Amino acid sequence: MFESAELGHKISKSEYEEAIPGLRAELLDAQYQAMDLGKFAVVVLINGLNAAGKGETVNLLNEWMDPRHIQTHAPDGPAADELERPPLWRFWVRLPPKGRIGIFFGNWYSEPMAARVARRARKAELDQQLAAINRFEAMLAREDVLVVKLWFHVTKKTQRQRLESLESDPQTRWRVTPEDWRALKRYDRIRDVAAHALRFTSSSEAPWLIVDGSDERFRALTVGRTLLATLQRQLDLARGRWQARRVGAPLAPADPRRNLLTALTLAQPMTEKAYASELLAQQGRVARLTRSAAFGGRSLVVVFEGMDAAGKGGAIRRITAALDARQYHIVPVAAPSDEERARPYLWRFWRHLPRHGKVMLFDRSWYGRVLVERVEGLCAEADWMRAYPEINDFEDQLTAAGAIVVKFWLAISLDEQLARFREREAEPHKRFKITPEDWRNRDRWPDYERAVCDMVDRTSTEVAPWTLVEADNKYFSRVKILKTLADRLEGALKSP
Amino acid sequence: MFESAELGHKISKSEYEEAIPGLRAELLDAQYQAMDLGKFAVVVLINGLNAAGKGETVNLLNEWMDPRHIQTHAPDGPAADELERPPLWRFWVRLPPKGRIGIFFGNWYSEPMAARVARRARKAELDQQLAAINRFEAMLAREDVLVVKLWFHVTKKTQRQRLESLESDPQTRWRVTPEDWRALKRYDRIRDVAAHALRFTSSSEAPWLIVDGSDERFRALTVGRTLLATLQRQLDLARGRWQARRVGAPLAPADPRRNLLTALTLAQPMTEKAYASELLAQQGRVARLTRSAAFGGRSLVVVFEGMDAAGKGGAIRRITAALDARQYHIVPVAAPSDEERARPYLWRFWRHLPRHGKVMLFDRSWYGRVLVERVEGLCAEADWMRAYPEINDFEDQLTAAGAIVVKFWLAISLDEQLARFREREAEPHKRFKITPEDWRNRDRWPDYERAVCDMVDRTSTEVAPWTLVEADNKYFSRVKILKTLADRLEGALKSP
Repeated sequence: MFESAELGHKISKSEYEEAIPGLRAELLDAQYQAMDLGKFAVVVLINGLNAAGKGETVNLLNEWMDPRHIQTHAPDGPAADELERPPLWRFWVRLPPKGRIGIFFGNWYSEPMAARVARRARKAELDQQLAAINRFEAMLAREDVLVVKLWFHVTKKTQRQRLESLESDPQTRWRVTPEDWRALKRYDRIRDVAAHALRFTSSSEAPWLIVDGSDERFRALTVGRTLLATLQRQLDLARGRWQARRVGAPLAPADPRRNLLTALTLAQPMTEKAYASELLAQQGRVARLTRSAAFGGRSLVVVFEGMDAAGKGGAIRRITAALDARQYHIVPVAAPSDEERARPYLWRFWRHLPRHGKVMLFDRSWYGRVLVERVEGLCAEADWMRAYPEINDFEDQLTAAGAIVVKFWLAISLDEQLARFREREAEPHKRFKITPEDWRNRDRWPDYERAVCDMVDRTSTEVAPWTLVEADNKYFSRVKILKTLADRLEGALKSP
Repeated sequence: MFESAELGHKISKSEYEEAIPGLRAELLDAQYQAMDLGKFAVVVLINGLNAAGKGETVNLLNEWMDPRHIQTHAPDGPAADELERPPLWRFWVRLPPKGRIGIFFGNWYSEPMAARVARRARKAELDQQLAAINRFEAMLAREDVLVVKLWFHVTKKTQRQRLESLESDPQTRWRVTPEDWRALKRYDRIRDVAAHALRFTSSSEAPWLIVDGSDERFRALTVGRTLLATLQRQLDLARGRWQARRVGAPLAPADPRRNLLTALTLAQPMTEKAYASELLAQQGRVARLTRSAAFGGRSLVVVFEGMDAAGKGGAIRRITAALDARQYHIVPVAAPSDEERARPYLWRFWRHLPRHGKVMLFDRSWYGRVLVERVEGLCAEADWMRAYPEINDFEDQLTAAGAIVVKFWLAISLDEQLARFREREAEPHKRFKITPEDWRNRDRWPDYERAVCDMVDRTSTEVAPWTLVEADNKYFSRVKILKTLADRLEGALKSP
């Protein structure tokens, strides 16, 4: 959920100052167009961690657009007359009319999440409230209210630094409250509850947009651009220009200069000798763990995704070498069969779910929906957007039934891929592995990168996290995969 | 929820035998067309009370259509290999391909509802599972799986008679199990859990269809006709003929010979003298209850709906006569204002919610969405279909916040309405009350009747039930309304 937002993005002052005038003009223009058209209302929800720049951003939005037509609602606790009505009443009566923008600082997420953080509510109660929120937001979407949900995020370290720096300056000391320090202490719990709530409520009509709040300029530009893109899309939709299936806010594009993939150092050192001994050690761990009594009540589902020639097959062989042959099954995922095409896209994976004590290795997987199908335009945006929560639901059910779900993205560089393609072409017995399509896919590299970043941000969950593997060096990559697998197995089999 | 299904419908043998050949031919034809087209799969869920004819109906469907292309799945408990996968796995692997029909006897509703009936699960846990089911079914709908959900219902009395009659015959004694007798003992609890679960999962994509199971022939015809209408609509949709916003199964039309309204005896006796004393007595109760200390922590929301000239205004005046003038507010609901039109349709009602200790009387209400707007075609079918769960959510929130929600449908006959119209025309000071539109609405009477039956069946909930008022005699009607109000107030203020 927060992977990209914890990378620490930065934007220079000069770049920021160059971008702002155009962005402001376009935002103002979009605001006025929406007002003239009068066909939809906009509700912006501002949520997130303390000291992540929520207030500053809202001030900026009011500065950039015409504040006379924006209603900003502050996060006070409910007044006496509000307590005598249903919790949503205070938001209902403040709903902006069509053509206008309402910014809700404290909103329908605040109290359910706070109650769960403070353990005043059970998990099932939180889920009950989140389901009600989903129904509420689906209704809003169908009633022409565009809901833009922003979550401002910072790492624990940044939050602490921010508070300390504010407190050390007499001019800003007043801004730090005891509540801020308490929230810092509960950072991990707040982050966990937020990850769960955001995942559960990230619908295709109203997806959450996570904003890295660590850099003031990056944060401002991200919010401004996202809001602009959302408004422009909704304007097109309301004018009947945009004919695809309806989706809410578009996802903010991953920054090519610093995203989850470009932040990796793909070529990691490892000698053949170190590899030989490390591989044996990790294979030994996996072998012992999958033969343990505890594993008899669990199952293991391993997902491999990665660009062509990233080394998925080789990694899988190093795993199966550690397993009992009766115990595992490899599912190579290519184009669906006729049987599979006649059912919902997840059906082909459901049919392969392992029994207890078994291991299922997916060479490509259900993530095809949000990778190749998205990039190649094989399904509509609305369809791959809804796939994120659908896939999360699927993996949630898997883990609830005792499966350990481990997901690897094998990341290689364009250069390394080229070298491997050439090598395959040169070797007769590997030539079948390389097709014209593989060459064509290289042109789509930036699109795939963006799809991968969105995928990790939206489907790396507390129950089934993604592991990004630096895969330019196969030795390093295989050892990291086996070690991760052993660690996840060990953790899962130890826990009650 | 079960109002219509508990009326006890009957169909004569001759009528049944006349209808069947045509229905069978059409069903078979629709089945083959769906198979040739191959664009959607059909999943029929069979749920309901014991001894309500579930098994018999499934046998009939297989007899009427081509059973080679129907897969029927029986309700055995999960096998060992199924217990090692997520609960939905057993249904996923049995999903029919596009073009085919799957009938699921035991299905994803069975275990969550059974667990709640047996108090193995809390309410919040049930709601958590129901929310997961809603997400699952929404996904199926978007993946071209048509889900038809049938609930077979009988009254407790019928269930007991059915079991007794089966047991008294040596030929059928084996069909009655100890489980059947246990279910009879828990009838009320099962009915309550079902009412909640059905309401929560009756979405616009996959609404529940409640089948009165008391008469074998009525049950069979209802299921056959509903399935046929659903298949035909989906065929049109899949062929691109039907352009309205997508909705799942159409509602079965209310039987004009015996529905919630025609089953009422509209002209109830009451003399003027009895009225005068009864009215005073009930007004006294309402006056005391609304001035009690307990009411200071609650509020009262009263909804009046009914055909023109049904006596809504007169009934409201008899209530307000019992209230403190500072305490109540009457909201006459006519066409929405510009302000209101610019927001979701429920907004105009949210803004009028009472504080504690207050009474809000709605002369017409949010039910306009599923009455006049439906009948006059002012909103698309998909929009009024989704209004049922949206309205239930709304009233659920109201009651959770302490409001007592009392809803009256004032039922008059066509003749009585005509007499009142003539009377109004004759009296100068009442003439303004009658417009050409009122006369026009009389032509739509059967459409309104159908809309009212659907409304009561889909929005009469455990928290906010409808009261149907026989209103041809105004004396009787007013007293019944005041008495109902006093009873509901008394019950609500007594409970902890």
